[in-house]
Amino acid sequence: MSNSLGEIAQVIDAELVGDPERLVTGVATLKNANTSELTFLANPRYTKYLKTTAAAAVVLSPENVDDCPVNSLVSNNPYLAYVKAVRYLNPEDTFSPGIHPTASIEDTATIHQSAYIGPNCFIGKNVKIAEQVYVGPGCVIKEDVSIGAATRLVANVTICHKVVIGQRGFFHPGVVVGSDGFGIANDSGSWLKIPQLGSVTVLDDVEIGANSAVDRGALENTVIEEGVKIDNLVQIGHNVIIGAHSAIAGCTAVAGSVTIGKRCMIGGQSAITGHITIADDVIITGLSGVTNSIKKAGMYSGAMTSTDNLTWRKNMVRFRHLDEMARKLVELEEQIQIIKKRSEKS
Amino acid sequence: MSNSLGEIAQVIDAELVGDPERLVTGVATLKNANTSELTFLANPRYTKYLKTTAAAAVVLSPENVDDCPVNSLVSNNPYLAYVKAVRYLNPEDTFSPGIHPTASIEDTATIHQSAYIGPNCFIGKNVKIAEQVYVGPGCVIKEDVSIGAATRLVANVTICHKVVIGQRGFFHPGVVVGSDGFGIANDSGSWLKIPQLGSVTVLDDVEIGANSAVDRGALENTVIEEGVKIDNLVQIGHNVIIGAHSAIAGCTAVAGSVTIGKRCMIGGQSAITGHITIADDVIITGLSGVTNSIKKAGMYSGAMTSTDNLTWRKNMVRFRHLDEMARKLVELEEQIQIIKKRSEKS
Amino acid sequence: MSNSLGEIAQVIDAELVGDPERLVTGVATLKNANTSELTFLANPRYTKYLKTTAAAAVVLSPENVDDCPVNSLVSNNPYLAYVKAVRYLNPEDTFSPGIHPTASIEDTATIHQSAYIGPNCFIGKNVKIAEQVYVGPGCVIKEDVSIGAATRLVANVTICHKVVIGQRGFFHPGVVVGSDGFGIANDSGSWLKIPQLGSVTVLDDVEIGANSAVDRGALENTVIEEGVKIDNLVQIGHNVIIGAHSAIAGCTAVAGSVTIGKRCMIGGQSAITGHITIADDVIITGLSGVTNSIKKAGMYSGAMTSTDNLTWRKNMVRFRHLDEMARKLVELEEQIQIIKKRSEKS
Repeated sequence: MSNSLGEIAQVIDAELVGDPERLVTGVATLKNANTSELTFLANPRYTKYLKTTAAAAVVLSPENVDDCPVNSLVSNNPYLAYVKAVRYLNPEDTFSPGIHPTASIEDTATIHQSAYIGPNCFIGKNVKIAEQVYVGPGCVIKEDVSIGAATRLVANVTICHKVVIGQRGFFHPGVVVGSDGFGIANDSGSWLKIPQLGSVTVLDDVEIGANSAVDRGALENTVIEEGVKIDNLVQIGHNVIIGAHSAIAGCTAVAGSVTIGKRCMIGGQSAITGHITIADDVIITGLSGVTNSIKKAGMYSGAMTSTDNLTWRKNMVRFRHLDEMARKLVELEEQIQIIKKRSEKS
Repeated sequence: MSNSLGEIAQVIDAELVGDPERLVTGVATLKNANTSELTFLANPRYTKYLKTTAAAAVVLSPENVDDCPVNSLVSNNPYLAYVKAVRYLNPEDTFSPGIHPTASIEDTATIHQSAYIGPNCFIGKNVKIAEQVYVGPGCVIKEDVSIGAATRLVANVTICHKVVIGQRGFFHPGVVVGSDGFGIANDSGSWLKIPQLGSVTVLDDVEIGANSAVDRGALENTVIEEGVKIDNLVQIGHNVIIGAHSAIAGCTAVAGSVTIGKRCMIGGQSAITGHITIADDVIITGLSGVTNSIKKAGMYSGAMTSTDNLTWRKNMVRFRHLDEMARKLVELEEQIQIIKKRSEKS
Repeated sequence: MSNSLGEIAQVIDAELVGDPERLVTGVATLKNANTSELTFLANPRYTKYLKTTAAAAVVLSPENVDDCPVNSLVSNNPYLAYVKAVRYLNPEDTFSPGIHPTASIEDTATIHQSAYIGPNCFIGKNVKIAEQVYVGPGCVIKEDVSIGAATRLVANVTICHKVVIGQRGFFHPGVVVGSDGFGIANDSGSWLKIPQLGSVTVLDDVEIGANSAVDRGALENTVIEEGVKIDNLVQIGHNVIIGAHSAIAGCTAVAGSVTIGKRCMIGGQSAITGHITIADDVIITGLSGVTNSIKKAGMYSGAMTSTDNLTWRKNMVRFRHLDEMARKLVELEEQIQIIKKRSEKS
């Protein structure tokens, strides 16, 4: 399949400088694109590859047009324009509806005739699967779950009882939604499990990455609002609320009862302590430990960044005595004041 | 279903101030409970909701009785009393025993007639499944595994060969028990895999959260003692021993051959270096890196907590020169001593 | 089964001091080995157990021979020699080839007759499974995947479309290879998913631990080179390249477009920021946050290590004012210079 540059320019709302009839068959990097491929330039780091690109066309910003040896698709946001082109050239795979003969479906489940249920899946009692839903091989959907239209579960996904999932969701292999929250109470030295009576509500257009887990609430629901994007191996504790259009990168832990605002971005391997609130439009850079509520939009950080081992060792030893250092500093300051006064007197 | 306050008071060992015939049908938060629901007050933060609660009754401590507008269930440990009530009002789901027709069971496996084996499960050779065990959809139990009475595997759980699991265990979706430990030996620049010949022993009343993994031992067994509670996405390395009634929060990594004492509590996103020992009754707060053995009960911490990005940047730059700062401080101290002596002489 | 010490000495290239006809049936620790078991001494910490060992023989270095009360297998690298013995005494389990009747195989898949496909597996269109491959229960292999000879997927592994896996690989339960990378572009406050058009290439002799995930590339492939060993719960982002014979310990996050050199060792719970490059032969100790490229072989670190809670609290408070401390120190230095000059003048 191929598309003309004229058609693409219209779709991505870019100005074409070049041949509208030229056809492209796919996308590639600026460095490696061949003469039938579309590419883009958004990061100045790659400008060096522009002059020698063999691409059919380059999506780029106005200031790079003159240096482009091939067709240009000019946009003030070339990365976004390129992404729109990629999406246009690579629509989601279609699938044939139907229920694989090895799937086990409870009688009371309702599955829309345009949905697909793959091999070795289990669909529990009273489950509702809407139109165009794709449930890949090995998925387990327990009783009373509802899955909205056009949502995709790639493979080996587990959705626990009573979870409600919106439309156009995308759940990668190994995802678990609705596992019990970590609710335990100490009773004379041993732990009593607290029944987790809430569920999980996942709104529309949510994507959750491979092997991530979202716990069900203790009393009320854990809520993932619309458009939230969660990467791989992320833990979302019980009763967390994640505001619309927030994005959370891999290996991050969000402890129970945290409320995250809308449009937040949380870097990978971060951790957010239980029961705190993060305002809208907060950016937390990777590896940060957030232990207090954040009340204002802005960027926050807390990583210990690495150095050569010897420097780190020496600095860490000092860190363990940082309070003493600070006290010593105050002491020296006082002594100097005394000396200065004395010398002024003399 | 409903239960009377008189009955609940007896079960949770609380003093009822109010109507013993009043019926409750469920539990809810202090703020949201309706007139047929039970609730509790344990955290002073929520005291403000007490005066206006609509609940049928509130579990609370003696000092809050006078302010309670509805029936009170008075206890010196209101949270624990409430948890007991929740457990009483919400007993574990029952299930009908049986083997789903899509489960694959090896001939030499022994499955108690009161157990349930769900759709698309695999039960290997010589596996022993005791009474009242629940094996949910998609679970894989490899050869020579033994699972004790009333243990539950929710769904898509994998138990590797020879693992022994006790009674009343609770394993959430995606859990892996008995995967090979990370045992490799360097042979002239490439790695030789070391066969992992031990197994895993999980004692009674252990709960393991979604997508957590417990590795088998290299020679001897990895051991999870009775009553241990492990949250989601936790990694337990080979030959680790976790003492009875310890609790480990999400995304924590416990490296190989670590011994953790009894009744420890380990916060989320922590990491414990290999081959060290943690004493009984140790609390490690979240995000801590524990690199040395801890010999005494107590609370230990090691998180780098986050601030606004600008403050963090400035502080991290300084941290990279902390040793120099410390040396400079010593130098200034010496200079001041010299100045003081000189000025005393003069 | 049993093997003679003479045979073992030859296999592991060690010098036998003792009886070549003596038979051993297995391996155990120095402390617990019985009279028919082989053991080893490599870590000086365990030297105390040598004199009283009951083992049939001990693999050890020349300096320990005189203290060994039983047969010795002498090697300059006793740990490696021992590992070779363990591997020799414990060859990988064999399996009978065949396709389990509950597996679902697409017509266009090609499965070598010496391979095994377990219960409830799914093998997609055009998949190629080479000789001696073991696909354990519950695995999902999506369309156009190729798996090289003698590779093993233990159970519940998911391999996404078009992924290419080499020979003698070892994939533990819950592993996901080829999930979509975390590619999203912001479009006026909401996120557009970027189609992930690359795949994953896993070369020969790669091992990946339980519940780890390797994302597919955005345009080009994510690449795991030969001999790489990855522990449990590790996240490998899109377009990462991991050089041959590198090893990555558990719970580590490698963000997108990172290039890791050959023979690197990365400690557990570490994190590597996107788009950076790590040279060959780099060792990163556990819990490190690597935020800049590392251009030289060597050891690098960045953990915040834990102390008792009180010390940590005091030090962390000071850390938040470290930049001020540094400025104050410079100021004091200047004041002291002024005082010194003044006193020299006077």
